[in-house]
Amino acid sequence: MKELLNKRIDIINSELKKYLSPVYPEIIYEAMGYSVFAGGKRMRPLLLLGACEAVGGNVDDALPFACAIEMIHTYTLIHDDLPAMDNDDYRRGKLTCHKKYSEDIAILAGDGLLNLAFEIMLETAASKKDFRYVDAALTIGNLCGVKGTVGGQTADLLSENKKADEKTLMYIHDKKTAALIQAALKAGAIIGGGSEEDIGRLEAIGYDMGIAFQIKDDILDITSTTEILGKPVGSDYKNNKTTYVSVFGMEKAQKDYEMLSERAARGLKDFSDNSSFLYEYSKLLTARIN
Amino acid sequence: MKELLNKRIDIINSELKKYLSPVYPEIIYEAMGYSVFAGGKRMRPLLLLGACEAVGGNVDDALPFACAIEMIHTYTLIHDDLPAMDNDDYRRGKLTCHKKYSEDIAILAGDGLLNLAFEIMLETAASKKDFRYVDAALTIGNLCGVKGTVGGQTADLLSENKKADEKTLMYIHDKKTAALIQAALKAGAIIGGGSEEDIGRLEAIGYDMGIAFQIKDDILDITSTTEILGKPVGSDYKNNKTTYVSVFGMEKAQKDYEMLSERAARGLKDFSDNSSFLYEYSKLLTARIN
Repeated sequence: MKELLNKRIDIINSELKKYLSPVYPEIIYEAMGYSVFAGGKRMRPLLLLGACEAVGGNVDDALPFACAIEMIHTYTLIHDDLPAMDNDDYRRGKLTCHKKYSEDIAILAGDGLLNLAFEIMLETAASKKDFRYVDAALTIGNLCGVKGTVGGQTADLLSENKKADEKTLMYIHDKKTAALIQAALKAGAIIGGGSEEDIGRLEAIGYDMGIAFQIKDDILDITSTTEILGKPVGSDYKNNKTTYVSVFGMEKAQKDYEMLSERAARGLKDFSDNSSFLYEYSKLLTARIN
Repeated sequence: MKELLNKRIDIINSELKKYLSPVYPEIIYEAMGYSVFAGGKRMRPLLLLGACEAVGGNVDDALPFACAIEMIHTYTLIHDDLPAMDNDDYRRGKLTCHKKYSEDIAILAGDGLLNLAFEIMLETAASKKDFRYVDAALTIGNLCGVKGTVGGQTADLLSENKKADEKTLMYIHDKKTAALIQAALKAGAIIGGGSEEDIGRLEAIGYDMGIAFQIKDDILDITSTTEILGKPVGSDYKNNKTTYVSVFGMEKAQKDYEMLSERAARGLKDFSDNSSFLYEYSKLLTARIN
């Protein structure tokens, strides 16, 4: 597993590098590349490849989409970190894009990455002449737009400095975190040629996995250390953010996290003959300590 | 002509309204809609529909893409107006998105519009099961990303407060202005089922038209009045912006503007039996006084 994981990460990184090879005006490519290579764990691309494989597809076919979803994830981080949004100077221990470059370049780098992701997906669909790629791109598009992550980030901003209710919290966790994880699994399954049923199952597993991942995030903000986490602990509390823990309490958070991650793991364990990578990786993911 | 023009503008506006009908969290749809309905003349959508018609296609088929390209145009304006970019409080006499709402919402409204444009194009391709829509979406994507408008805006930022050379100026005018006009004509021609030759001709005309449009913009910044223009005249000069006039002088600017707009008009005049709308509209466009 460890070997295959590293091999896949290497392939994803080398493809990402190709897409971001600088031409004039170089600084925008550099800023895009800086954030794409600022320590991301390639979680969404790995899930996308794993889902493609799990339904019997060829992971090479899904590689462009794996890169595209990482670019989309990165663009959301760059824009979320901006002074007008979360105003973060550091992410994963490195300067954020607007601190390393400037605010204008960071806005454009985010725009460029979002646009490039769609270019890559469309280019793949156009050259392979296969509507599966159109459906997969639409899936990702729907889950990262105003009905997905953009909507989630909006709701998150609106709930700042006031106690969000359960419904709002679940909307934010669903749209801001789970949506792109669902998108990865669903798009991977579509590209891999999965049946309607398989695609639906992986989408549901993506939801459980995404919410579990976010609950763990909320828990770690309280129980971890700054050293392990790579960002200040207690920042949610300090920033008066509504979290799963603040709404439901630590005990229920821990219980729900366990229930959801176990349900996701159970769904993947016997999913197919080819789902062992996805199963093992999902276990790594939900067991995360940072 | 006038009647058909107004009819098409009405159809575009009513379609745009449908796409932007607010659901939770409403404020983001409102901000997106605010800027989309802040007085845009629908130039790019009208060109896209006209190109589709000129090659013998049905304009109804191109309507979703007409809306998509207007959303992309609007997103570039919202982000360009941000404090970290051009820092404009007004556009077309109305408050800019970040002044009307807030900076964070404006960033997300731009992101949401760009993403929604791709969702609409992909949805059309997926439901019509026709690769022409994929090719048209890819054309637009390529011309509005880092190799297009995002690159152009980057070069524009880099050239601020220093005299850009001819090559840089032409890069900026090409990518920042002409690219989306070319995209409109080329995508329209693709959707309309135009031949390779027709698509190429309209793309070339789009370049002439786009550069002519921008030269006129640079000229009007000096010769017009604030009242007619709806924005302060002399703002390029005041902001130390390199323009066609500052690089080549007013005489050559006027001459080149005339040459390019006439060449574009000539190319459209006898383009086909169905190109009269596009021809008439292009003449209106290059003769603009604001």
